[in-house]
Amino acid sequence: MNGLKEQISEAVSQDLIEIEVALTKNLKPYLPVVSHVAKYIMFSGGKRIRPLLMVFSARLCGYNGDYDKTLSVVFEYLHAATLLHDDLVDGADIRRGNPVAHSIWGNPATVLVGDFLLARSIAIAAETNSVPIVDVLARTTAQMSEGEIHQLLHRGDLAIEETDYMEVITRKTACLIQAACQVGALLAESPGKQVQALANYGYHLGVAFQMVDDLLDYTADTVVLGKVTGADLREGKLTLPVIYALNRATAEDRTRLETIIRDVDMAEADFETVLGLIKKYGGIKYTRDRAQEHIEQAKNSIDIFDASKSKTFLKQLADYVLVREM
Amino acid sequence: MNGLKEQISEAVSQDLIEIEVALTKNLKPYLPVVSHVAKYIMFSGGKRIRPLLMVFSARLCGYNGDYDKTLSVVFEYLHAATLLHDDLVDGADIRRGNPVAHSIWGNPATVLVGDFLLARSIAIAAETNSVPIVDVLARTTAQMSEGEIHQLLHRGDLAIEETDYMEVITRKTACLIQAACQVGALLAESPGKQVQALANYGYHLGVAFQMVDDLLDYTADTVVLGKVTGADLREGKLTLPVIYALNRATAEDRTRLETIIRDVDMAEADFETVLGLIKKYGGIKYTRDRAQEHIEQAKNSIDIFDASKSKTFLKQLADYVLVREM
Repeated sequence: MNGLKEQISEAVSQDLIEIEVALTKNLKPYLPVVSHVAKYIMFSGGKRIRPLLMVFSARLCGYNGDYDKTLSVVFEYLHAATLLHDDLVDGADIRRGNPVAHSIWGNPATVLVGDFLLARSIAIAAETNSVPIVDVLARTTAQMSEGEIHQLLHRGDLAIEETDYMEVITRKTACLIQAACQVGALLAESPGKQVQALANYGYHLGVAFQMVDDLLDYTADTVVLGKVTGADLREGKLTLPVIYALNRATAEDRTRLETIIRDVDMAEADFETVLGLIKKYGGIKYTRDRAQEHIEQAKNSIDIFDASKSKTFLKQLADYVLVREM
Repeated sequence: MNGLKEQISEAVSQDLIEIEVALTKNLKPYLPVVSHVAKYIMFSGGKRIRPLLMVFSARLCGYNGDYDKTLSVVFEYLHAATLLHDDLVDGADIRRGNPVAHSIWGNPATVLVGDFLLARSIAIAAETNSVPIVDVLARTTAQMSEGEIHQLLHRGDLAIEETDYMEVITRKTACLIQAACQVGALLAESPGKQVQALANYGYHLGVAFQMVDDLLDYTADTVVLGKVTGADLREGKLTLPVIYALNRATAEDRTRLETIIRDVDMAEADFETVLGLIKKYGGIKYTRDRAQEHIEQAKNSIDIFDASKSKTFLKQLADYVLVREM
């Protein structure tokens, strides 16, 4: 795995520059404050994984037009819109080491700039003149909002099952990553089989991506992650590692877990206890194994394509999702 | 004008039944709570003016397909989405005599159901396979969010000018009503001249509609209106009647107005003082005259169409906007 991150960085360097330019150029706000809030959330260390996936999916399908970078920003705008609204919904304080947008600009502006970004995304997509592309985006946006609501309804729900978790992460995260890959293929006007292959790749990659994200909230180096670990648990978000442990714990251990999870002022030592119990019941390993499986399925999904630099990149990116540390 | 309301009610009765059915049928939420929040905001006394305008605009252009009622709900969903987000942004308590949605379901669910409604709207529009229709909706949604932000920035701004007011009401209200009429013509695949005529009709109707709304906040019967008058002023929203008066008041009267407007705990007697000063400087009459002019322009815009029941209805509706009491 050595050098994987560097290989990926090199493969995307020129595209990244163009994507960064497109992110600013296509915002076209009428009011300066919209630009301030949108740029604050977008230019604070995002990895641009969604735009890059769209660009490389289109390229894998032989796209050689000049609208790919422009269209790719849609996936960053949608992502930014959900971050703005979700941080507000979650009552979060910190995102990537910085204060959240609503703590600076207030809830009203944050809600409205999120709306603006959703709308701009669809408007940019409509410029492709492709109804299927617009349709994928509209459905994805609806699914994402329902995923967040589903999560909200299960906040602090100790009876949450793995199926609920899968439903939430599919809607919250995998949908948009899937849409990015699918739209890349649609932009290239690829045959249905290729569109489906990239949709499958994106779905499995997205699921694994979120599982790793949820793992990192337990296992990451706080400095590298840019926020304290245990944030999910403190917000009442029960993710796969703890769901798995809860379902396998002895009555006594389950009670210990439940007592700590219900405590609104969870101390650092309590979090360590939870982490210890999760490890005891194999919740970390189980989650990593599931993520690994999805990464394999992602990679297998694009086997129908001939060898190319884009294919190599998409496979490398899948491997990287599993080993990333932030 | 006698019986105008009754004539309009009769003309729309069958369409209204079908629109009400379509409003429920096309929501297609995955979670029950989405349906609860969406129906709470939608089935609380809305007049369905936007869906009706779309349906009658399509009919005026000779549309005889069966997608008009389905597509028309988009304009009620978008309207509902903005009501959910705007009430939250404005910190409102009451809407149409009922507690606002976020006081019942909380801010998070309200934000997210608003997002869902925005997304569902675009998805329904995409089913027309018409990129111009999707494009109008996406642009309208972006404009609406920026209109609300513009209003937010000017909250309590005593230096606000009539041009700012026009900008805000165009984006906040007229845009969506314009879009409803324009999309009706686009659905009928009308020539550009007819599309433009209906867009103009909708624009002027929408401007007048909001001006009358703003007048009613000063002059309405509280029971008929379903909320207390003076709500806008208490929220720091300076509308045309008071903007006009501020610009024409003597230094002494302007100071009186400013002192009252700045007071966060405005007493009923203070509101009466403001209303008296607005009347003294002709702010009510000026606003009504402007609304009347826009209604005339709306009606003139559709003169290019041959006489028909739909044309008669759209002209009657324009007249009604000016005389409505709620």
